[in-house]
Amino acid sequence: MTKPFENYIEKRVQNFNIKLENLLQNLEAPSQLKDSMKYSITAGGKRIRPVLVMASYEAFKTDIEKTYTIASALEMIHTYSLIHDDLPAMDDDDYRRGSPTNHKKFDEATAILAGDALLTYAFEIITDDMNLNIEEKLYAISKLSKASGPEGMIAGQILDIEAESKNVNLDELVTIHSKKTGALINFAVHLGAYLAGATREQLYYLDEYASNIGLLFQVQDDILDIIGDEDKIGKPVGSDEELDKSTYPNLLGLKGAKKYRDMYAEEAKVALYNAGIKDSYLKDLIDYIAQRDH
Amino acid sequence: MTKPFENYIEKRVQNFNIKLENLLQNLEAPSQLKDSMKYSITAGGKRIRPVLVMASYEAFKTDIEKTYTIASALEMIHTYSLIHDDLPAMDDDDYRRGSPTNHKKFDEATAILAGDALLTYAFEIITDDMNLNIEEKLYAISKLSKASGPEGMIAGQILDIEAESKNVNLDELVTIHSKKTGALINFAVHLGAYLAGATREQLYYLDEYASNIGLLFQVQDDILDIIGDEDKIGKPVGSDEELDKSTYPNLLGLKGAKKYRDMYAEEAKVALYNAGIKDSYLKDLIDYIAQRDH
Repeated sequence: MTKPFENYIEKRVQNFNIKLENLLQNLEAPSQLKDSMKYSITAGGKRIRPVLVMASYEAFKTDIEKTYTIASALEMIHTYSLIHDDLPAMDDDDYRRGSPTNHKKFDEATAILAGDALLTYAFEIITDDMNLNIEEKLYAISKLSKASGPEGMIAGQILDIEAESKNVNLDELVTIHSKKTGALINFAVHLGAYLAGATREQLYYLDEYASNIGLLFQVQDDILDIIGDEDKIGKPVGSDEELDKSTYPNLLGLKGAKKYRDMYAEEAKVALYNAGIKDSYLKDLIDYIAQRDH
Repeated sequence: MTKPFENYIEKRVQNFNIKLENLLQNLEAPSQLKDSMKYSITAGGKRIRPVLVMASYEAFKTDIEKTYTIASALEMIHTYSLIHDDLPAMDDDDYRRGSPTNHKKFDEATAILAGDALLTYAFEIITDDMNLNIEEKLYAISKLSKASGPEGMIAGQILDIEAESKNVNLDELVTIHSKKTGALINFAVHLGAYLAGATREQLYYLDEYASNIGLLFQVQDDILDIIGDEDKIGKPVGSDEELDKSTYPNLLGLKGAKKYRDMYAEEAKVALYNAGIKDSYLKDLIDYIAQRDH
């Protein structure tokens, strides 16, 4: 992990958080609902998806304010999916990043509605953004609804639930991750580059980069779940394994999982090269994800 | 209730249902998710909101195919809200319209995800519609996200939950209904007329019409809950009263509730007149709602 890249993330996240929190602050919603939405949005997420939008944009252009609303919408959708995932009927998690989950802090009804509200509001803020033209707005909404909908993220969530009660092979595991987490990561990279005017060919290779980044992130998550330090990742080590979930290490062993991690990292670098992108935070991000310890 | 209007609804609903079910059929989603979405979409809803979109459009123009996607998106959002409303953490209903609710037919996790999926897919189908131009799509998405979001329908839902544990006055009751059910009804009437090229002034009066139609629908619902026949409305008579919910009859008595019903119907007619709309199904609809017995 290189220091400059950590500084980059910190600076970007700081500015982004102001915009994101303003969008919620402006909302004239009942206080219980608004509090619940804000609680999960400000619960210490790493903002990896917004950073991806910004880093992808910055591979081409510098005025990243243009990406803030899209990045905010994306983070709202990611956050809603965590709120609903944590519900008793789903993963039944009481804690996330060391704090009570939304339904523990508030109640289940509020958590369901706060999730619904974040999902809906994500589309609203795109339509209201003054920095995007009408084509850009519609393109973003089309891509975001597909990425997060029943053929994207939600498909991944239901496949993931089904996978708990059966054995899945590596192909199926990749499909689940490509949809459950990959679809939003693809959206982040794609939209950042699209808004900055990337060519069709560049978008093609950046989609490939994003797919590998998504799987890289997941395999590293699985590896950390085995070897990670409980304090650093904020949930009990080995919790997925206890549920007998399909993971890379379970299917390939720890050594095999690490081999796949290195392969995804390498393919992400090749894709970036093919997109003609050289000095970019997108490149630093590969090592950042592969080497992260929390 | 006039026979011609019933025939009108039946014909429109028939064609609309084909379009709506096709939109779900085309979805390449995991079968459990798709089945669950289809189950609630085809569970015998009255399609009052889609009919409103069509009737509003037909006050100006005849090619109503143009409204089908917007009407479908609206019905998907209405349906998702029912699925989530029925969950154990919310109203905890086992039956709706005489059939098991989504989480009873499938399970809670699937019901939560099917609701999320219908909500997300509603926006996707608007972006993909070939019958609308880009301005119309963005206008529809902006209005729909606001109507169904944390300042609209979801605000109404949380206010409704809060109202269960306290006394609300008539003003507060009107606010709850205006958001919880009124916002989507407003969207229906507004978008139908907008797509047909209504003037700004006509849209203003049609918004007024829609607000009164929404409250009319609600007060009649409350009245039917007291005097209705259990078979016809498909849920136990008096169920809202048992929960000590705030209703028009509880606040005003049955006679007072009927007076408000007549007042809303009258104001809806005046608004329609001010919009310059004479012979329209929108007019028949007023009596249809006021006189319905299920």
